Amino acid sequence: MEKETTFLEELSDLIKAKDETAIHDMMESLKAEDLVYAYNRFSKDEQTELVNLLSPEDAATLLERIPQNQAIAAIENAQVETAASILNELYSDDQVDILAELDTRDAEAILEEMHPEEAENVRRLIQYDPESAGGLMVTEYLAFDANLTVAQTVKDLQEKAEEYEDYHVQYIYVTSHDRFVGVLQMRDLLLSKPNTKLNTIVIKNAFTMPPDARLEDLISFFDKYDFYGVPIVDGEDQLLGIVLRKDLREAESEKSNLELLETQGIVGGEELRSMPLWLRSKRRLSWLSVNIVLNIIAASVIAFYQDTLEEVIALAVFLPVISDMSGCSGNQAVAVSLRELSLGVVKPYELARVLWQEIKVGLINGVVLGFLIGLAAFIYQGNAYLGLVVGGALAINTVVAVSIGGTIPLFLKKMNTDPALASGPILTTVTDMLGFFLALTFAGVAMNYLV
Amino acid sequence: MEKETTFLEELSDLIKAKDETAIHDMMESLKAEDLVYAYNRFSKDEQTELVNLLSPEDAATLLERIPQNQAIAAIENAQVETAASILNELYSDDQVDILAELDTRDAEAILEEMHPEEAENVRRLIQYDPESAGGLMVTEYLAFDANLTVAQTVKDLQEKAEEYEDYHVQYIYVTSHDRFVGVLQMRDLLLSKPNTKLNTIVIKNAFTMPPDARLEDLISFFDKYDFYGVPIVDGEDQLLGIVLRKDLREAESEKSNLELLETQGIVGGEELRSMPLWLRSKRRLSWLSVNIVLNIIAASVIAFYQDTLEEVIALAVFLPVISDMSGCSGNQAVAVSLRELSLGVVKPYELARVLWQEIKVGLINGVVLGFLIGLAAFIYQGNAYLGLVVGGALAINTVVAVSIGGTIPLFLKKMNTDPALASGPILTTVTDMLGFFLALTFAGVAMNYLV
Repeated sequence: MEKETTFLEELSDLIKAKDETAIHDMMESLKAEDLVYAYNRFSKDEQTELVNLLSPEDAATLLERIPQNQAIAAIENAQVETAASILNELYSDDQVDILAELDTRDAEAILEEMHPEEAENVRRLIQYDPESAGGLMVTEYLAFDANLTVAQTVKDLQEKAEEYEDYHVQYIYVTSHDRFVGVLQMRDLLLSKPNTKLNTIVIKNAFTMPPDARLEDLISFFDKYDFYGVPIVDGEDQLLGIVLRKDLREAESEKSNLELLETQGIVGGEELRSMPLWLRSKRRLSWLSVNIVLNIIAASVIAFYQDTLEEVIALAVFLPVISDMSGCSGNQAVAVSLRELSLGVVKPYELARVLWQEIKVGLINGVVLGFLIGLAAFIYQGNAYLGLVVGGALAINTVVAVSIGGTIPLFLKKMNTDPALASGPILTTVTDMLGFFLALTFAGVAMNYLV
Repeated sequence: MEKETTFLEELSDLIKAKDETAIHDMMESLKAEDLVYAYNRFSKDEQTELVNLLSPEDAATLLERIPQNQAIAAIENAQVETAASILNELYSDDQVDILAELDTRDAEAILEEMHPEEAENVRRLIQYDPESAGGLMVTEYLAFDANLTVAQTVKDLQEKAEEYEDYHVQYIYVTSHDRFVGVLQMRDLLLSKPNTKLNTIVIKNAFTMPPDARLEDLISFFDKYDFYGVPIVDGEDQLLGIVLRKDLREAESEKSNLELLETQGIVGGEELRSMPLWLRSKRRLSWLSVNIVLNIIAASVIAFYQDTLEEVIALAVFLPVISDMSGCSGNQAVAVSLRELSLGVVKPYELARVLWQEIKVGLINGVVLGFLIGLAAFIYQGNAYLGLVVGGALAINTVVAVSIGGTIPLFLKKMNTDPALASGPILTTVTDMLGFFLALTFAGVAMNYLV
């Protein structure tokens, strides 16, 4: 275990010693995940000091690897000049993602210090919704005029090889008077005669997307076509940028990870334990405090039947089990619906179909679970009627729980509400109330056989 | 709503009419997500019929787009000859993924019917663990001998352009006597003189990975380096295949989606509502039935204190709330730990650090939640001591719940158990037992003030 953290202490010592050269060497040798790990382990001061000691290129590499909210914090904590020189080194999509999250005045100050053309580019890109093609595209790409020859193009590539090295040069984009014409593959350049005009070898019916295309549209585009990137073109055929498959997958995987946090009730973005305590506490509490009110409302059903409970106190043992198991069954159905929605195999309006498919599962699982809890109740009190009351309540409640669990994400999606966040609390409130109601009503009816 | 499903009925009609040409045209025009959606909506018979009517190329495209378990089922349900001709058209990694899941005899029969060299390739690849580099690599790549000249290479590319079209020709791999030498970028081929030997322009210190590299290693490799793919090379420097960034991202996103299902207790792979009812029911029940036993064990704590409960029946209202809210708080901590584990910002042995960070959140949230439930209890019975008993129990239990929730995924990961699946049930059993114990013990102590 000691060995595994040695690089952490080493890097920490180098920061204290302000040894820029050794830090640079370490950056080169460290695995990406180790760097992310080390950065998370550092104190705020060490983090700021590390960013200061790094060359702008190295700092940019670091910022690309750590989670985005940490990259934003790093820029916030850096001097304006340092921040500007780091931002100059980032790809345009990352520049925008970070600057959009800063205080307007801070962002303005940094933009003033950046290379004028980089700053101008950011000011243009920042207009787009971050989950649209405009917000996801990069503006580092190769574009050549359709009237150039293969020889002229190759010459330019040769001359500016160093500048282009960081570009995504899998394709060349061909324009004519600033209008997008089509895409050229490197190999087509290779397989053509030097005096051929680009115009004659360019693929002209290339797919493009508008800047307001949504994340889902882009995902289904890249699912369908095996391209490295797609050109983003406006209504006047002007080439605005390229959305890369790589960046899209990152955005998508980020989204699905946040969904996992949301289903467990962590609201307003991601939580990392390196974040301030009050923020972590607040993000969890905002959902918990709504949930506890719902819980108390649900439990008030028990209060309403206090007389029944007083006579059959054994029921008190089984009420939490009914509540918990119905919640579990319902949440399974929620998870399947969330998954099917994200795969696109279910549409928000197909409530009836999902309902029917869940009722069938609910009937089987309800009978099994009802039997198990009924058996436990029978063994506990030696009273078969108690088993019937408890088992019957859980069986029926299971059918209702999976029905609600399966359909509520579709309903919320249709209402344009976030299904990951709200499905759980709505589900458990309804199933708790119904579960308590069923068990206590059944007990009331069977009272003579229970006492 | 009607309009949205028109293509579904149209395709269904074409299948009935066995109109192969129209189906082919529809395949070309349909969006990937619509095709996945339609396929999921069809009956088993329609699905089988569709696969039969498609050309092998179109069927291969379909199989690449639908979820993998459906692709496997489609091959299982097809005639051996049809299955073989479709498999011939798939990339090697998909061929292996499907054949590995079939019954050995079925797989053997299909392999007999496939192109001999494709079949031999599959037999070799199927040896690798599907979550290793060997299991994820494709064998469709371009390799040339180091002694060839640029002109010879370009000539070969020109002559076999059609065959190579489906290959991932972003890089050319250079070998010498079957030993891996390095990587050549298309543009370097472009920028070199025709009589240059590949040996002199190849990048020789190219990164490679061994076939037993794990999914996590590959993910951190592609996080660090912006490559399109990485060559997989064995101990004797032989080039075995290429792992593509694209395929890796798919494997990763698949994994994180399954994790979402697992945290909700869906065991043994994914559930889609098009799967057989008994399978869906079984996958949910296997987890639920363990959970109900744990729940009953936890609830037996209440039975143990039945006398106390009989005297303070109002407690019965709050026991399910304590159980549910402690579970919620603990599951938030579980979600954060799962997320941090997957980001690599926490290591499985850092239990103490996580514990301390969770205790702090637990103290704040415990006080807030304890106050809220205590207030509700006070209002309900007009007894401040009842509020103290209930609120105190929830406050303490919240601290314990987040502590266990934060650390149990690390502990399970260290034990090489799947943290997504087991964390929830362990957590709720412990917190239920403790929550009931605390509330009922406190009530016993304060009994004189409660009745």
